[in-house]
Amino acid sequence: MNVTVRGRSRHYRTVSFDAANNAVRLIEQRLLPHRFQIVATPDYRATAQAISDMVVRGAPAIAATAAYGLAQGLRAFPGGSAAAFARHAERVYTTLKAARPTAVDPVNAMDWMRRELAAVAGVAEQQRVALLLAERFADEDVEHCEEIGRRGAKLIREGMRVLTHCNAGWLACVDIGTATAPLYAAQAQGKKFHVFCDETRPRSQGATLTAWELAQQKISHAIIADNAAGHLMQRGEIDLVIVGSDRVLGRTGAVANKIGTYTKAVLAHRHGIPFYVAIPLSTIDWRLRAGAEIPIEERAASEVLGAWGVTVQGRRTYVRVGNPTSAARNPAFDVTPPELVTGIITPAGIFRPKELWANRHELGG
Amino acid sequence: MNVTVRGRSRHYRTVSFDAANNAVRLIEQRLLPHRFQIVATPDYRATAQAISDMVVRGAPAIAATAAYGLAQGLRAFPGGSAAAFARHAERVYTTLKAARPTAVDPVNAMDWMRRELAAVAGVAEQQRVALLLAERFADEDVEHCEEIGRRGAKLIREGMRVLTHCNAGWLACVDIGTATAPLYAAQAQGKKFHVFCDETRPRSQGATLTAWELAQQKISHAIIADNAAGHLMQRGEIDLVIVGSDRVLGRTGAVANKIGTYTKAVLAHRHGIPFYVAIPLSTIDWRLRAGAEIPIEERAASEVLGAWGVTVQGRRTYVRVGNPTSAARNPAFDVTPPELVTGIITPAGIFRPKELWANRHELGG
Repeated sequence: MNVTVRGRSRHYRTVSFDAANNAVRLIEQRLLPHRFQIVATPDYRATAQAISDMVVRGAPAIAATAAYGLAQGLRAFPGGSAAAFARHAERVYTTLKAARPTAVDPVNAMDWMRRELAAVAGVAEQQRVALLLAERFADEDVEHCEEIGRRGAKLIREGMRVLTHCNAGWLACVDIGTATAPLYAAQAQGKKFHVFCDETRPRSQGATLTAWELAQQKISHAIIADNAAGHLMQRGEIDLVIVGSDRVLGRTGAVANKIGTYTKAVLAHRHGIPFYVAIPLSTIDWRLRAGAEIPIEERAASEVLGAWGVTVQGRRTYVRVGNPTSAARNPAFDVTPPELVTGIITPAGIFRPKELWANRHELGG
Repeated sequence: MNVTVRGRSRHYRTVSFDAANNAVRLIEQRLLPHRFQIVATPDYRATAQAISDMVVRGAPAIAATAAYGLAQGLRAFPGGSAAAFARHAERVYTTLKAARPTAVDPVNAMDWMRRELAAVAGVAEQQRVALLLAERFADEDVEHCEEIGRRGAKLIREGMRVLTHCNAGWLACVDIGTATAPLYAAQAQGKKFHVFCDETRPRSQGATLTAWELAQQKISHAIIADNAAGHLMQRGEIDLVIVGSDRVLGRTGAVANKIGTYTKAVLAHRHGIPFYVAIPLSTIDWRLRAGAEIPIEERAASEVLGAWGVTVQGRRTYVRVGNPTSAARNPAFDVTPPELVTGIITPAGIFRPKELWANRHELGG
């Protein structure tokens, strides 16, 4: 999407590749919304480190980063036998795989590339094709998001007030985003609407990333505390909810997403407000049978006990907020049962959660 | 309640009076949980300023502070005619009244004192009686909270996990608190239980004040992001919710309280978890007819766009968190309808919300 830097608007992908310098280019997300900066990782180890350090986050974005990182690593092979190249390729793969051990998307992306590369002969040709494959992976992610946007834009009517939670925006993908895709598509159609961004404590991705994205695209929006959405719904100030997801169960339609999503779904249900989940097909898990089987990561207490921000002097810093001698619980995700979900917006169409299984062939299951 | 300072545990009220120095003594709440400090306001203007600046907050606490401030002001009368004393008294009253214009409790407390003082003859005698009245007001607040504790402790069974929101603790009252009173009473009865403190963004009173209180009283507790309670309820980890209130409508049982309370009530209802509201009788509004009539204060966007905390160097500071070019909405309160409230814990007993009106004579209505 477009970013305005020093008064000039330019298009940036979250992840891209600089073939001349064999570098992966990433938006440094840890500095947002306070500073916009592109970092270039000079080798595959630096790319893996950027994934580890959350320079880039969001399942589709880190999958594309790993795909580019794999191509980057293969292209940097210093020369030698086919066996040496294979050993080098394995090292690159395992380094990138270890960068975010719980994420499945980078592994899926690299496994797909490796299957394709198995049919290619010669080091130079494999190096060339690897980059083509990484570019294709990134382009397809963009196409999927565009399709989500086309499908989802129909839900957004003139003047609507839309709530979103966390960041399932273009910063979580290669471009466009999932939950944000219908917003950007509706904007392109000339529709006027307003977005409420849940702050999304404890990591505040809504207040930092989603709000920054929407500001760059000049979409009318306001940040709210996670506590405020219930009140706004009660007063009739929210018409539609769209969120992303980390995993949707194909068998049941249960939706795992950032902590707090379930709460918003319960509130939307009470108020008769449509609640949609926007995902690429790769987010559907066809294996698990029940939402309770989804592992819920517990993250560090320090996230709940404090906040990252910038001081008035512009220095990025962590401040302790809560009582330092108190314990904290920090589940990072929750599971929304299908009966609270109006529809799942996918590149293949909008489905009721219970319809996913019946349409599994069309949906890649 | 007791506070441990440098290893020694001592009893402190939130608000008290130092008659020898004619000073109001307050716990400096803006420094909590990072520093415990008692400030003494040397005259009624400083007392009013402390109310304005939120050194002290919470309806019962600022009511007692205003009551002491009125006595403090009358006691400082430099001498003169009865008419001069009356003018001085009026100045003290209006200064304290203006300190927090939307709060009704300080005005009610001072009006009660003025009615009592009207029957007292002579400046010296009025000065003496004013302090007695302020002390009586503070003591009665403590007694009301003790009675709430006695009534509410029955709801807390061994091993329960209790959720509370914001701070309706002893820091909001003269002592003991409202929502916390049943916890402290149950603890005194030897019961073991666990408390989840909602962080309560944007001002984080749960993470700062309630968690600090519970830590001082050695009650097992954990701070959670406001987003997390729904997930914990879903997993069967919360058995009871107790919150305070800024205003309960006597005619309907609707409950106005800190933003996010309504959300927790909706979640508790869905999960069949009892939801109680603990209040002194002064919190019941017998006049308004509908929750929608309760004015909802919108506070500064900066609260939502950032956070107050302390740096690792121990310096208190504000950090910007959210995108600085974004708007924010910041409603400070919400209204929970009576059908979501299991019971109202008052010093006169526990009532269903709809029973308040029928029992209005007993409840001071």
